[in-house]
Amino acid sequence: MRIRIDLSYDGTDFHGWATQPRLRTVQGTLEEALALALRVPETRLVVAGRTDSGVHARGQVAQLDVDPDVLAASAGRSTDPPLVALVRRVNGILPADVRVRSMAEAPAGFDARFSALSRRYAYRVADRPDLVDPLRRAHVVAWPRPLDLSAMNLAAADLLGLHDFLSFCKPREGATTIRTLETFAWSREADGTAVATVVADAFCHSMVRALVGCLLAIGEGRRDPSWAGEVLAERARQQGVSVAPAAGLTLEEVVYPPDAELLRRAEQTRAKREEIG
Amino acid sequence: MRIRIDLSYDGTDFHGWATQPRLRTVQGTLEEALALALRVPETRLVVAGRTDSGVHARGQVAQLDVDPDVLAASAGRSTDPPLVALVRRVNGILPADVRVRSMAEAPAGFDARFSALSRRYAYRVADRPDLVDPLRRAHVVAWPRPLDLSAMNLAAADLLGLHDFLSFCKPREGATTIRTLETFAWSREADGTAVATVVADAFCHSMVRALVGCLLAIGEGRRDPSWAGEVLAERARQQGVSVAPAAGLTLEEVVYPPDAELLRRAEQTRAKREEIG
Repeated sequence: MRIRIDLSYDGTDFHGWATQPRLRTVQGTLEEALALALRVPETRLVVAGRTDSGVHARGQVAQLDVDPDVLAASAGRSTDPPLVALVRRVNGILPADVRVRSMAEAPAGFDARFSALSRRYAYRVADRPDLVDPLRRAHVVAWPRPLDLSAMNLAAADLLGLHDFLSFCKPREGATTIRTLETFAWSREADGTAVATVVADAFCHSMVRALVGCLLAIGEGRRDPSWAGEVLAERARQQGVSVAPAAGLTLEEVVYPPDAELLRRAEQTRAKREEIG
Repeated sequence: MRIRIDLSYDGTDFHGWATQPRLRTVQGTLEEALALALRVPETRLVVAGRTDSGVHARGQVAQLDVDPDVLAASAGRSTDPPLVALVRRVNGILPADVRVRSMAEAPAGFDARFSALSRRYAYRVADRPDLVDPLRRAHVVAWPRPLDLSAMNLAAADLLGLHDFLSFCKPREGATTIRTLETFAWSREADGTAVATVVADAFCHSMVRALVGCLLAIGEGRRDPSWAGEVLAERARQQGVSVAPAAGLTLEEVVYPPDAELLRRAEQTRAKREEIG
């Protein structure tokens, strides 16, 4: 039986999602809590978005394969449905900076990583002193100069579509840097905070933060809007692009196709990964 | 010259607003930073809302009286207006959990405390597991049971208006507990978080949290909606009312009259305080 887990975390005190020896990671913390709650020696999660160190998530999705008998036994004398009881027990074990929002039996063909159609990130910047809110300081970056969002949106338009994003990626051996950037748009939240919405089929390592870093230089007026497209065309890691701070970045949503298409999507994604990267 | 200071803070690590010996307070922290920035031995602030330990503020207002020559001298060689330069310098000195949003020369007759018409607080509760957001955990309280906001609003209506709120106050020697509760309404934010908006001319010590604590018992179904009005009518500190946790409470706004009425309002408030308490 496969469980879909929807979760959120404040990435400030985590060394990213993926387990690393002797470091506090979201995966390690959650796998330990699940093992305790299920009374098994260990558990193994697969995740939709492997967030980097310091990056947050509100709409992260992971999966856990579990023996239905183990799940039933773990519920003890609770009269709640087993997954409702498990959410409560796991949240009782987890530290306050990571929360399971819900658990549900995954539909047939569901793969948290490979069935996903796209990932949506938000990057938040308070670019005036009166916008800096101490209550949001963990996930909104304070910027010392005002940003011209029109110039940034002009530049962002040049990056949309299917491209080799090597200029914005820390490449990994044998992995593709070709991605489809579906959305990259800056707007202001009700209180005035600048927010970038960034959607792609998938992202390579540090890609969102490099895209944002490029646009911040344009928004401040240090670069022309045409610079983003020029960087993209170079297809080489640029010295000129600063990677924006991790704290501003939040994985907001993972989008999946309708249930009937989950399996086909997973097969397609896997085939593409093997073919090109 | 009187400066109006608009500021925000995350109250988690402060022992409230008011200076106390050997404790970290917002007032103490801000007065020290201002003294450093202005290069004077000490400064003295007057505030609109003396928040309790652990309570947050987004729209706090304070005032500082300063010699114009001292202000001009502190700006050094900056070409910015002196108060813009001062905001930047003070924020550079302050820790990240308190921020000055703006400073402006106060209009004639302005008194941060006595000119205020009303204070608006918000109390936020995540009453379902999927609403608990680790990124907002400092200022949204997680509640283990779902709340019936209709029942809470029914109860809240019985508390509106001019009353002796002694049942909801920690009384202080010689201070009145008569207040006008202008608004007490529960609603849900876009994401589903339950939020109480509480507005009064002024609040006595722990009053908002006692009002919220009373309504939480009603929202959970432990008490009938009529209970709130009964508690109010008792005019005695009730054993049955739990004071809600400080973390959920944020001072959102201090409302002042138009400039021409600032002085008259301050005189009225002072006279009323002397007469009744």
